[in-house]
Amino acid sequence: MIKIGIVGGTGYTGVELLRLLAQHPEADVRVITSRKDAGTAVAQMFPSLRGRYDLAFCDPKDAGLTACNVVFFATPHGVAMAQARELLAADVRIIDLAADFRLRDAAEFERWYKMPHACPDLLGEAVYGIPEINREAIRKARIVGNPGCYPTAVQLGFLPLLEAGLVDTQHLIADCKSGVSGAGRKAELSLSFSEASDNFAAYAVAGHRHLPEIVQGLNRASAEAVRLVFTPHLTPIIRGILATLYAPLKDRDADLQALYEKRYRGEPFIDVMPPGSLPETRSVRGSNTLRIAVHRPPDSDLALVIAVEDNLVKGAAGQAIQNMNLMFGLPETTGLTAPPVMP
Amino acid sequence: MIKIGIVGGTGYTGVELLRLLAQHPEADVRVITSRKDAGTAVAQMFPSLRGRYDLAFCDPKDAGLTACNVVFFATPHGVAMAQARELLAADVRIIDLAADFRLRDAAEFERWYKMPHACPDLLGEAVYGIPEINREAIRKARIVGNPGCYPTAVQLGFLPLLEAGLVDTQHLIADCKSGVSGAGRKAELSLSFSEASDNFAAYAVAGHRHLPEIVQGLNRASAEAVRLVFTPHLTPIIRGILATLYAPLKDRDADLQALYEKRYRGEPFIDVMPPGSLPETRSVRGSNTLRIAVHRPPDSDLALVIAVEDNLVKGAAGQAIQNMNLMFGLPETTGLTAPPVMP
Amino acid sequence: MIKIGIVGGTGYTGVELLRLLAQHPEADVRVITSRKDAGTAVAQMFPSLRGRYDLAFCDPKDAGLTACNVVFFATPHGVAMAQARELLAADVRIIDLAADFRLRDAAEFERWYKMPHACPDLLGEAVYGIPEINREAIRKARIVGNPGCYPTAVQLGFLPLLEAGLVDTQHLIADCKSGVSGAGRKAELSLSFSEASDNFAAYAVAGHRHLPEIVQGLNRASAEAVRLVFTPHLTPIIRGILATLYAPLKDRDADLQALYEKRYRGEPFIDVMPPGSLPETRSVRGSNTLRIAVHRPPDSDLALVIAVEDNLVKGAAGQAIQNMNLMFGLPETTGLTAPPVMP
Amino acid sequence: MIKIGIVGGTGYTGVELLRLLAQHPEADVRVITSRKDAGTAVAQMFPSLRGRYDLAFCDPKDAGLTACNVVFFATPHGVAMAQARELLAADVRIIDLAADFRLRDAAEFERWYKMPHACPDLLGEAVYGIPEINREAIRKARIVGNPGCYPTAVQLGFLPLLEAGLVDTQHLIADCKSGVSGAGRKAELSLSFSEASDNFAAYAVAGHRHLPEIVQGLNRASAEAVRLVFTPHLTPIIRGILATLYAPLKDRDADLQALYEKRYRGEPFIDVMPPGSLPETRSVRGSNTLRIAVHRPPDSDLALVIAVEDNLVKGAAGQAIQNMNLMFGLPETTGLTAPPVMP
Repeated sequence: MIKIGIVGGTGYTGVELLRLLAQHPEADVRVITSRKDAGTAVAQMFPSLRGRYDLAFCDPKDAGLTACNVVFFATPHGVAMAQARELLAADVRIIDLAADFRLRDAAEFERWYKMPHACPDLLGEAVYGIPEINREAIRKARIVGNPGCYPTAVQLGFLPLLEAGLVDTQHLIADCKSGVSGAGRKAELSLSFSEASDNFAAYAVAGHRHLPEIVQGLNRASAEAVRLVFTPHLTPIIRGILATLYAPLKDRDADLQALYEKRYRGEPFIDVMPPGSLPETRSVRGSNTLRIAVHRPPDSDLALVIAVEDNLVKGAAGQAIQNMNLMFGLPETTGLTAPPVMP
Repeated sequence: MIKIGIVGGTGYTGVELLRLLAQHPEADVRVITSRKDAGTAVAQMFPSLRGRYDLAFCDPKDAGLTACNVVFFATPHGVAMAQARELLAADVRIIDLAADFRLRDAAEFERWYKMPHACPDLLGEAVYGIPEINREAIRKARIVGNPGCYPTAVQLGFLPLLEAGLVDTQHLIADCKSGVSGAGRKAELSLSFSEASDNFAAYAVAGHRHLPEIVQGLNRASAEAVRLVFTPHLTPIIRGILATLYAPLKDRDADLQALYEKRYRGEPFIDVMPPGSLPETRSVRGSNTLRIAVHRPPDSDLALVIAVEDNLVKGAAGQAIQNMNLMFGLPETTGLTAPPVMP
Repeated sequence: MIKIGIVGGTGYTGVELLRLLAQHPEADVRVITSRKDAGTAVAQMFPSLRGRYDLAFCDPKDAGLTACNVVFFATPHGVAMAQARELLAADVRIIDLAADFRLRDAAEFERWYKMPHACPDLLGEAVYGIPEINREAIRKARIVGNPGCYPTAVQLGFLPLLEAGLVDTQHLIADCKSGVSGAGRKAELSLSFSEASDNFAAYAVAGHRHLPEIVQGLNRASAEAVRLVFTPHLTPIIRGILATLYAPLKDRDADLQALYEKRYRGEPFIDVMPPGSLPETRSVRGSNTLRIAVHRPPDSDLALVIAVEDNLVKGAAGQAIQNMNLMFGLPETTGLTAPPVMP
Repeated sequence: MIKIGIVGGTGYTGVELLRLLAQHPEADVRVITSRKDAGTAVAQMFPSLRGRYDLAFCDPKDAGLTACNVVFFATPHGVAMAQARELLAADVRIIDLAADFRLRDAAEFERWYKMPHACPDLLGEAVYGIPEINREAIRKARIVGNPGCYPTAVQLGFLPLLEAGLVDTQHLIADCKSGVSGAGRKAELSLSFSEASDNFAAYAVAGHRHLPEIVQGLNRASAEAVRLVFTPHLTPIIRGILATLYAPLKDRDADLQALYEKRYRGEPFIDVMPPGSLPETRSVRGSNTLRIAVHRPPDSDLALVIAVEDNLVKGAAGQAIQNMNLMFGLPETTGLTAPPVMP
């Protein structure tokens, strides 16, 4: 059994870790922290978990995290990096679901997250946690920077095209739509039901924090530098991201379907759908699967890729557990096999 | 033109007053206050009102409310009563959409609202603003306590039965379902889209502030004292209340359909639907109409009444304008004639 | 492994059986029929099941159901009874998710379902499939009539009160609210998103088919005959039923909390919540748990019980699998342990 | 008063015409047809219109449409063209909300709508009904082809850029999101609440019927031929379209904000929002306003335009009435002044 600590368990990524780990045969969640709600039973805050966990939230300072094998940070940005050294020294692996270990470049981190980086020296060893890209490095990693929800969908969607050098990398567009849970478990007027339901809007058009993370990842896959327009929208669903990706093709005759099928052959969590498919967010609700379809729109030289994921699973907690499985030598799908909930 | 002031215009009842008054041929909204957002243009906070109002929110102290003919309080409880005397002295009529002038009994107010009443002496002259009950008194009122959303639906739903003395008044049940806007324009976790959508729950079962208001109203209509179980639920719709009312019949042969039709004949905003009808909240969305159907469930001695209203219109701002129309000698329907928005 | 056939697998109860059985370690789904969609791959109709099933829907006549150990009927009413004799003769157990084997009385069946019963002689041996009531009989049953969604929530909600003889059985009220999936996977205008979302309404107030089923069950539990008013409403959620139950107490001093806790102690799928709790439908989304809270409303002699379930799981497919587990000697919770999906 | 006939009044564009015309001071709706529902009172089918119309639906053959001044066709494609000649002969104006008179080219119509055109000779005189483009022609028109919902938003969104020749017309992208009412009032499984809510998906990626209509309009505005990728998506809202438009700029220094403000100055129904604005669909719900914002995404040579409209109002019935107002010499905003319903 893997001894697990979760720092900051009261947000959606935290409770999603708890939901998924309750089904994981090798997971032993020992401690879950919350400064604000220390003392409250997990099952009191989240009645959906009644009967699943006897734990109460504890104060981080009493958490004894160094006795864990792995600690997940389901916290705001900036928390994981403050505790990383101490945990590593105690031989604890770290999976950070926030942004502290996603960007290679400390200056870039500081520019977008408006705080100095506490341990820029660790950025070199931290592994960006998309197993379909970095599987071998993740197996050996001490620190995993678990990707953002948008970056997972956009990178995995564009990846085969970029790796194959098939597209004009200067004119990529990612028109993305996210469910509201992507904004976190927050008391915020713009996220309230009366404001966000029966409504559709774009946001952060002038620059979203996931942009540098996406571009960094695309650049790693591409021989040529990438320029991306990233337009996030909020759609009134709870879970789910759909990314509609546009890329000008250099070679109009390329067999894109074969390209995607080949790239993702054998991947347990990537489903390249048959030609003509239109993936729906609900087809992955609650599961770690990312579904992709690739299209050629009529009268156009573009490739159009549609990728869907559950932002809380493949876009956060599920991918984190997938990473943990790799880091601890377990079959990659352990605890992640429940089918999507549909309808 | 009626010179109008609105105190506390940034909540849903405030913006709904603005929406409705924009269509009112005799309304001249002169001033709208907000302590927190003073200086912000109304159309900036509410883009739906772009091009409709040139006003900005102003600080209450600069508002010059005494130059108005009428002031609407779309504020938290406790604000109207603090300003009532000064406004009355300046010959300004008051319509309070909060609870300050709803309950006759200052002690009852204090018990439920946890604050002393600032002007208990004015409670005697304040008129409870349901025109279908108090029309003549409203015409002459200086102060109107505009009813709560649930109380409007529940009272108008039970009223004919109680006035006719047809039911056992000791065993009334109001099982009510409200849209989320009824909770106000608030940053509150439990009201967030991710929490409140795809979910249904009861709340305030142990005692909701609208209970004493409803019971006071039912007692006025009934020869015998009333006992009511009131169970509010939250349903994931923006606007709308549906009240399912149960009352044991003393006389099983009474013609309830005729009773309701007679009681509400000529009422412009009460629609007694044909026998067998099942009113839907969307059938009144955005309008001041309250629709009622009365049923006799199979194998039972109960009357079952279903009443629907838009909680922000007949349950708040629309009824307030209906009251204003009466107070200023206008046709009661002025500015309130737009049909519901369906679908 | 249990060899399983599913008749009528294209509705929501069918696809929910597939979702849950994909996680069941002893389930071997051999055949799934659909007259209309014979030949279509399951994963084509339900992309959420891609990679989970290699099956295609087959025509009932080619299904070879007699080679199965158990057949689930996820069909319209009337199908199971037509095939029951042949299956029983081949030693196949039957779990009917429709109404054919729910009512004891063939005449009652015919009155509500407008068709003659094909095998009234089998009604005597059919067991009504609520394990918390009929566990031992279910273990030995050849035919299980799996309950309706409302009947499960309402019966389990009222049960302790009736068994203990604590309430006036002549004045029971069940004010119920169901998500839209309860109406089935249907092309029906009134169920369309544009009609059913942002809307709340009652339906079938004059008599719902679940009424006789509920009353039959309540009468079995009660020493005195039961009279029930049952008011179903449609709420814009996909999954979930919330039943608000009202029962006049004979003994006002009874400890209802203790009564419920004692009655359901040890039940793996019934969660009696702590005093004051307000169960939400989302707290059971996707799971086989039914949560109950019991209240005493202020100024009243009523018991108020709130019960929530996922109508497709505990209200249909999950309970059917719970029954199968019992019939085949498996631990009752096998395959049914995934926590609810929240948010 | 204008004598008005509505053919096919049972769909969403029909009932929306009725809602809006109920507020129109010059509208006298004389007749409304429905083959299927002849004899049914309008207020019975649409309870939201109770008290607004005494009309019943009548069979088209009894409708006496030739006595009207104008007939709206709120029908499937193909109906208006079959009756056009007879109505014109009787001096009746025609506003077709379907596609019969939108495309100039009968062959193009036949290719996309799979039916021969009944009166290709009338296509030359029919005017495409976007007043902001064709105002003067509409005033004199006998036949108006009222635009589709997507085409209205996409054309008005791209128009200033194309007219000014500022963009590379070969690489336009319209990533559009529509509420479900855009699909019509239909019993269709994919539109049902259980399928379409809590879900997001693209559709018709291989070719949507609105594509040729949009391209025709863009080509009229542009000196250079246009090539467009049009990706429609379904979002779980009832009303509303948001179009996210991408166009490569030839001149990166152009003042796009000024361009849009100048182009739409004085337009009563086009709201060019301030720089940095992010229009929401709910900000136009129920109203005839189209709001536009123009952006320059970071690190890009694209113009990004966001346009929102209510698909049933500016995208259908409201624009049709705007056209009627022009055709009959009324102020263009007559009957169309109600503010959006928010929240």
